[in-house]
Amino acid sequence: MKNQLENIRVLDLSHVLAGPVASMILGDLGAEIIHIEPPKGDDSREFGPFIKEKSAYFISVNRNKKSVVIDLKKDEGKKILYDLIKISDILIENFKPGTIKKLGFSYEEVKKIKPDIIYASISGFGNDTLPKYRNKPSYDMVVQAYSGLMSITGTEEGEYVRVGTSIGDIIAGHHCAISILTALYIREKTGIGQYIDISMLDSLIYILENAILRYIVTGEIPRPLGTKHPTITPFQGYKTKDQWIIVPIGNDSLWLKLCKAIERNDLIDNPKFKTNKDRTENRTELNIILEKVFITKTFSEWKEIFEKNNLPYSPINTIDKVVSDPIVKYREMLVELNQPDIGKIKIIGSPFKLSETPGKVRDHAPSLGEHTEEILKNLLNYSEEKIKNLIKKEVIYTYKYKT
Amino acid sequence: MKNQLENIRVLDLSHVLAGPVASMILGDLGAEIIHIEPPKGDDSREFGPFIKEKSAYFISVNRNKKSVVIDLKKDEGKKILYDLIKISDILIENFKPGTIKKLGFSYEEVKKIKPDIIYASISGFGNDTLPKYRNKPSYDMVVQAYSGLMSITGTEEGEYVRVGTSIGDIIAGHHCAISILTALYIREKTGIGQYIDISMLDSLIYILENAILRYIVTGEIPRPLGTKHPTITPFQGYKTKDQWIIVPIGNDSLWLKLCKAIERNDLIDNPKFKTNKDRTENRTELNIILEKVFITKTFSEWKEIFEKNNLPYSPINTIDKVVSDPIVKYREMLVELNQPDIGKIKIIGSPFKLSETPGKVRDHAPSLGEHTEEILKNLLNYSEEKIKNLIKKEVIYTYKYKT
Repeated sequence: MKNQLENIRVLDLSHVLAGPVASMILGDLGAEIIHIEPPKGDDSREFGPFIKEKSAYFISVNRNKKSVVIDLKKDEGKKILYDLIKISDILIENFKPGTIKKLGFSYEEVKKIKPDIIYASISGFGNDTLPKYRNKPSYDMVVQAYSGLMSITGTEEGEYVRVGTSIGDIIAGHHCAISILTALYIREKTGIGQYIDISMLDSLIYILENAILRYIVTGEIPRPLGTKHPTITPFQGYKTKDQWIIVPIGNDSLWLKLCKAIERNDLIDNPKFKTNKDRTENRTELNIILEKVFITKTFSEWKEIFEKNNLPYSPINTIDKVVSDPIVKYREMLVELNQPDIGKIKIIGSPFKLSETPGKVRDHAPSLGEHTEEILKNLLNYSEEKIKNLIKKEVIYTYKYKT
Repeated sequence: MKNQLENIRVLDLSHVLAGPVASMILGDLGAEIIHIEPPKGDDSREFGPFIKEKSAYFISVNRNKKSVVIDLKKDEGKKILYDLIKISDILIENFKPGTIKKLGFSYEEVKKIKPDIIYASISGFGNDTLPKYRNKPSYDMVVQAYSGLMSITGTEEGEYVRVGTSIGDIIAGHHCAISILTALYIREKTGIGQYIDISMLDSLIYILENAILRYIVTGEIPRPLGTKHPTITPFQGYKTKDQWIIVPIGNDSLWLKLCKAIERNDLIDNPKFKTNKDRTENRTELNIILEKVFITKTFSEWKEIFEKNNLPYSPINTIDKVVSDPIVKYREMLVELNQPDIGKIKIIGSPFKLSETPGKVRDHAPSLGEHTEEILKNLLNYSEEKIKNLIKKEVIYTYKYKT
């Protein structure tokens, strides 16, 4: 079945992460992504690690996209963007609020060029925001800290840590993709486009789950708990003789099974540990006992015991373990990509497993300006002479693979 | 403008978190969500904290939904679900793989009832999976650990921590909503429905960002780094006299500004700290210096210095600070909900800021079975007698608010 999203064209004016995640999602799902880059390229092309001088970081987020390099500071560059907007469905940008207006491509302007455009902006604290937040820098780290997420992620002793992935950018990218897909459906029904204003702070607040309501209801300020769950016990990691084991005992019947499996029937009758509520209230006392138990055997020994007793558990896998796990291969979450100039490289697959139009890694990450000529010639019908002239004037830039 | 998603009906057979997050997103965006609950209710109705005996946890994820209680183990219960499927667009479930088939409502069966249904399953390791992963428990904690995310989240000394929110469930819920919205667009164009198979493990692998490529390219196993960024320095938290400050110095020109602002011009000329690459390589040495600097003043004093010098920074906000921040109010990320039996309560708003059809908290979280009669009467045209009879036989359950 033909994927109808293939007829959807996205102009991606964004850089580094939140915007590129949104366009990666839409690209995985089938949409045509035209990444407009400045002459020096998306900043993330400079982020390590590098493989044959190419940024693996950039490759990982920019598969399935085309790269068109335009100097938007020049009037002739603006004219090209104008022509591209005319034939596009969606525009994504994550400049600092106000920047795109100065370039002459605010939503109001773009709507005049393409009335039914779906136009999405991502920023740290919103485009529609209070004055003092307008120029606040919006790095992922800032939003992880500002949103309160970092205040509930860390050790029980109170050492805060960053989520090991740029979750502030990533969640905002997801919320942007969700909003765009919604707007696309609405446009299909009504013919009307929309402006979308995604804030990274809004996005992280949305995923704080029960932390905010816990504070509102109890007045207690949530704090980091190591690997522990705030309201379920035991539901955390324990050190074994050689590595950690996750022991997620989600209800009282699993607790009975656990006590038997670890040969501590005495704990079953202890009223301090009878219900989940009891165990959570007496967590410190319980953990002194359990820590002593789990440290006595290796992970493999516990694994065998847990499997025999049909108890849930997990290792804390390091990345090398994840990469070589058979389920990751089976689910095609690591796929081989043929990346020009580099050769075969494994990158992350698509989690969007739709039966008829599954998300896919269809194409490599583009070299800077790889598609400039192709797009201008095929989509905008620019003559070869006109294109040559624009290259000469340094309005556009192209790239040819070394052969 | 009328929100066309209001005509979309979702049958939500899911429980606790990943599925409910997907339906919350669709509900916020306007879709009609009918949450089918078993007689004892969604497990999360038992999760604290409680307010007037109601679960605030449940309320936070189930606004904008309707609750219909059906005993699906009874044939007459199955018949009601059959009738509801006939008039629905989307079905979401997150039972253990195989469970819904035993109930008689696998995708193959449901497709016979409603050929263009969009049917989404969420599980820990996929419905299409390898045999030994089929019965693996899929708690959020298991997937946080199994995916490798936990192995890169923790202290520099190697103490792993859980992301303070159930990110495994939440990301899977997002990927489910994205897939459903895509399928909805495709169905609008082609009339064809789809089966969607979301795995929590796939979902967390998708957001590991550069960690997997870093390992593939360099062979180095990524590890937790506290608040530090793996490849940018300084880009982390430092202790001040009274609280932490986040110092995200993303490039070399900000580094110059920082040295001047903290009155350490001597660092500018130190070749060990010249470029970001230098600073990252000599991070330990640099941090010994910077830690001594930041501890000398309070956060407020640093704040003033950073703002005067136009340098990025952030406090690590605790939840009480987030809740009272004016931007949260301005962006409507905390909204007042009138929750029957409880009264006014503040809950998290919607980050989906679409200009024409914004995400909204429109309605309270339902009491168990609150809408059973309404839905059976108004949508299925069941007679009052038939409904009374079904209640008597304990096939359906209803709830009336105390007055």
